[in-house]
Amino acid sequence: MPEQVTLGKYIFERLNQLKVNTIFGLPGDFNLALLDHIDEVDGVRWAGNANELNASYAADGYARVKGLACMITTFGVGELSAANGIAGSFAEHVPVVHIVGVPTMQATKDKLLLHHTLGDGRFDVYRKMFAQICQEAIFIDDIATAPFEFDRMFKTAVVTKRPVYIALPSNFVEMTVPAALLEYKIDMVLPPNDPEVEDECISVIEKMTVEAENPVILVDACALRHEVQDLVAKLADETQFPIFATPMGKSAISEDHPRFGGIYTGVLSKPDVKEAVESADLVLSIGGLLSDFNTGSFSYEYSTRNVIEFHSDYTKVKSAKYPNVKMQYALERLVETLPQFLGDYTPVPLPTSQLAYKDITVDEEAPLTQEFLWKRVSHFFKPTDIIISETGTSAFGIVQSHFPGKVIGISQVLYGSIGFATGCAAGCSFAAEELDPARRVILFTGEGSMQLTVQSISDCCRWNLNPYLFVLNNGGYTIEKLIHGPKKDYNNIQPWDYSKILGCFAANHDYQNCKVSSEGQLDSLLSSQKFNTPDKIRMIEIMLPSFDAPQNLVEQAKISEKTNV
Amino acid sequence: MPEQVTLGKYIFERLNQLKVNTIFGLPGDFNLALLDHIDEVDGVRWAGNANELNASYAADGYARVKGLACMITTFGVGELSAANGIAGSFAEHVPVVHIVGVPTMQATKDKLLLHHTLGDGRFDVYRKMFAQICQEAIFIDDIATAPFEFDRMFKTAVVTKRPVYIALPSNFVEMTVPAALLEYKIDMVLPPNDPEVEDECISVIEKMTVEAENPVILVDACALRHEVQDLVAKLADETQFPIFATPMGKSAISEDHPRFGGIYTGVLSKPDVKEAVESADLVLSIGGLLSDFNTGSFSYEYSTRNVIEFHSDYTKVKSAKYPNVKMQYALERLVETLPQFLGDYTPVPLPTSQLAYKDITVDEEAPLTQEFLWKRVSHFFKPTDIIISETGTSAFGIVQSHFPGKVIGISQVLYGSIGFATGCAAGCSFAAEELDPARRVILFTGEGSMQLTVQSISDCCRWNLNPYLFVLNNGGYTIEKLIHGPKKDYNNIQPWDYSKILGCFAANHDYQNCKVSSEGQLDSLLSSQKFNTPDKIRMIEIMLPSFDAPQNLVEQAKISEKTNV
Repeated sequence: MPEQVTLGKYIFERLNQLKVNTIFGLPGDFNLALLDHIDEVDGVRWAGNANELNASYAADGYARVKGLACMITTFGVGELSAANGIAGSFAEHVPVVHIVGVPTMQATKDKLLLHHTLGDGRFDVYRKMFAQICQEAIFIDDIATAPFEFDRMFKTAVVTKRPVYIALPSNFVEMTVPAALLEYKIDMVLPPNDPEVEDECISVIEKMTVEAENPVILVDACALRHEVQDLVAKLADETQFPIFATPMGKSAISEDHPRFGGIYTGVLSKPDVKEAVESADLVLSIGGLLSDFNTGSFSYEYSTRNVIEFHSDYTKVKSAKYPNVKMQYALERLVETLPQFLGDYTPVPLPTSQLAYKDITVDEEAPLTQEFLWKRVSHFFKPTDIIISETGTSAFGIVQSHFPGKVIGISQVLYGSIGFATGCAAGCSFAAEELDPARRVILFTGEGSMQLTVQSISDCCRWNLNPYLFVLNNGGYTIEKLIHGPKKDYNNIQPWDYSKILGCFAANHDYQNCKVSSEGQLDSLLSSQKFNTPDKIRMIEIMLPSFDAPQNLVEQAKISEKTNV
Repeated sequence: MPEQVTLGKYIFERLNQLKVNTIFGLPGDFNLALLDHIDEVDGVRWAGNANELNASYAADGYARVKGLACMITTFGVGELSAANGIAGSFAEHVPVVHIVGVPTMQATKDKLLLHHTLGDGRFDVYRKMFAQICQEAIFIDDIATAPFEFDRMFKTAVVTKRPVYIALPSNFVEMTVPAALLEYKIDMVLPPNDPEVEDECISVIEKMTVEAENPVILVDACALRHEVQDLVAKLADETQFPIFATPMGKSAISEDHPRFGGIYTGVLSKPDVKEAVESADLVLSIGGLLSDFNTGSFSYEYSTRNVIEFHSDYTKVKSAKYPNVKMQYALERLVETLPQFLGDYTPVPLPTSQLAYKDITVDEEAPLTQEFLWKRVSHFFKPTDIIISETGTSAFGIVQSHFPGKVIGISQVLYGSIGFATGCAAGCSFAAEELDPARRVILFTGEGSMQLTVQSISDCCRWNLNPYLFVLNNGGYTIEKLIHGPKKDYNNIQPWDYSKILGCFAANHDYQNCKVSSEGQLDSLLSSQKFNTPDKIRMIEIMLPSFDAPQNLVEQAKISEKTNV
């Protein structure tokens, strides 16, 4: 008889193989049997989040950094609190495996009036809800197929970059499956493109590219999610075309790349960036995701119709769609072949606005402004930082900063759930520690947003993780005030004493509270060698005037109010 | 031309008529237009919660006290965070109107790639998800019918005691409807029972009741939700039958009622209560909801088959179901007619265990135990208190306490979402203040549970509400440890410094922190006149040994572990 392993252990062995070393979630009586097996697998730990919404945000952040994440919740009461986080992962193409411990098959069949049910015998309700916001949502009902179903779901998440949902009745956890299955790694390789269709598509692209005199590359969200950043950089290296990023694509190309031209957001772009992109006669768009806040409310105004769109599962040349020509293979091929056709291309000069951050003077006593803040932090950032900015003021502001080297930038521009960033930063902190304990995680959030998910900070303290928590305190939901008028009571929030938060959560973990309100204070804090070392968790309260906002946000708000969508 | 009113104002006027004076929720750009109208209606205020899950729990608590609640969230990112709270309201029969501000009809029709969408043009996804956990989930698409649709949803919530969901595109808010509609009150009266069916049913009940020698009344959750408490008390007054409550029915009958016999939970009952209920030859069950934790894991063992079940929409006599014989009318009639048939009924003596709380001695130095705690707080409670206990240790413990007078007791026994109680207590605090500012709200929660929804406390501070927050600190998820073994790391939580919480949230609001670990300390605190007056928000940390638990919970845990459901 071959060696057997419990399904519970099988699951964590697989996750470990996939480099999922932290499992997010909360215990609940229908998942306890499963959690028992975590400790059996070296290299896998249980984060133990303070609530499920925060766990789902953390899983999202972890997956953005490490390529896959797993969250475990319990039936009904646990999983539903994670729905918003999972919907965000779906919208933003983030691969999270959500395993839900559910009642036994027998209890389900008998429709027992169990706690955590709706009291009406409908045991399949929650899975049906998640089916709406996941790539696939399955219910494990047979131990014979269970390991294959788990493998299939892991692959589905990785390949589609979307969340998947697995309801696991508690009675299956202790049942066994052949241990030998674990010797066969899950094949995560993308199926190749159809060679003929790819040939045809590539040759059209080559022809258009050679004919173009002023082409640009525009890199967007899905280049990050589908992990083609290296190919994008090579494409810029080899062609020397100017390369721009969208707000959601920020960090898909190093901003230190010699051909990086800035962030393009339609009418919200810096004038020279707008001019450079919109006067191009060819746009190579990579991983585009054209949502309102990513495009300056749909204000792209290319002067050319020559747009080539590279997507994860198709390529589009002008109006012609080439199904299943995946960007990963298409870009690999272009990087190889394109340079030889480009003999007489002369690199055009780049917009200079993207270097404006370099010009900085500190007026010691001057009150802090958004303008100064985003310039100054650009000099604080290091090439391996992971930088998360919250929807609202921070997400707009961060666009105006400079990311050096291989910074990973995260901002939930499409789905835009406030509170996300703090939970996401916690998840990134787990990932960063696993990749390199010296790596820094830096959060920018607003005090209104941080209130939604504040206990995520406790999750960091529990594991001695040391993110920088920059809290922009401007007295309420400034973005909403800008969109819909300043004098609305409903956009004010309860003022907290933020200096008490770390003291409450940190237990024996070392921490530092700071509060800065002038240019000089921020400058001297960020200049301190000690402060630059991530050896403790830090909260930095940035005091800002209530209606001071990044210029691009002010413009966006005007558009939003006018169009009223 | 008749006078017109905006739909936005219409909604809040109606809510005001229905005595919904606090609106829970958070602002978001798709609901700002609606929120603008709150201030136009005197007597309606915007709670402004710190996050949506907490808002949904607060709305649930408010509705349990005042009969209806309203929550407003924004499209996708807001509403989904409230899904768990709404599912709980559905399971537990609590009427909450959930209004969601969604994009304009035009944006919806055009399937714009807006923020807060899933990026795939499916604008109806979120409503579909809520349709699974609401009595009805509608989308407003016509101003002509909009006011009637709102009225219909308000009525549906009140009559069915379930949550309803209304997606309101932002473009409708400023459109107008006839003001005269507001002069016609929404008719909330239940349709009468079919007289013939009711006659037949009542005469069978009368016959069985007269023949019984040892009948008992057992009152449960739906008696509270469908607000027949006064009828239940009258029935006990008039018949002098012993009356028992289930854990979910606790407070449906005053525990000072001379015929109150105790709490019945199957095998988890006190022996004399178990004997009294199970030896009855007739059980009049009112509003029964036979979930696992409400019945000692389905361990009812009546010796009789003579059970009459009164429900909100049917009555069942032994095996015969009388559809549409609603308990409200059935009980009204029984209270009138039954006493004249009961000439020779001799009231039986009551179990004495329910009076055990009276016997209390304080051992000054003795460490606190659950046993002492629940006895002692019984003497702290006042007849108008609203007492909320969290799933887990508190919900089991509270069953062992005594509620005087007209206490309202709340515990989410069926749905059992941890974190619920703190949010619920915030909602109850708004309701209590509106009914009588001197009314006290008392929360019992565990420190693990409180971590999930801690920012609910900030919502209380924002409005100067003064609940008592008793936090049972026993170092982790004790209930899970009892169910599944003590030595599991995943049931430990990050230790917080609870004394810093009120200081962080309270701003200028007055507060008090206490920490007690001996019988003497608790006794002297609860005896203090000052402490008894709810003039500030108070957090009382109750230090307990990690594995000390109420005896009924210890027994329940043994059953749960054995049956593994």
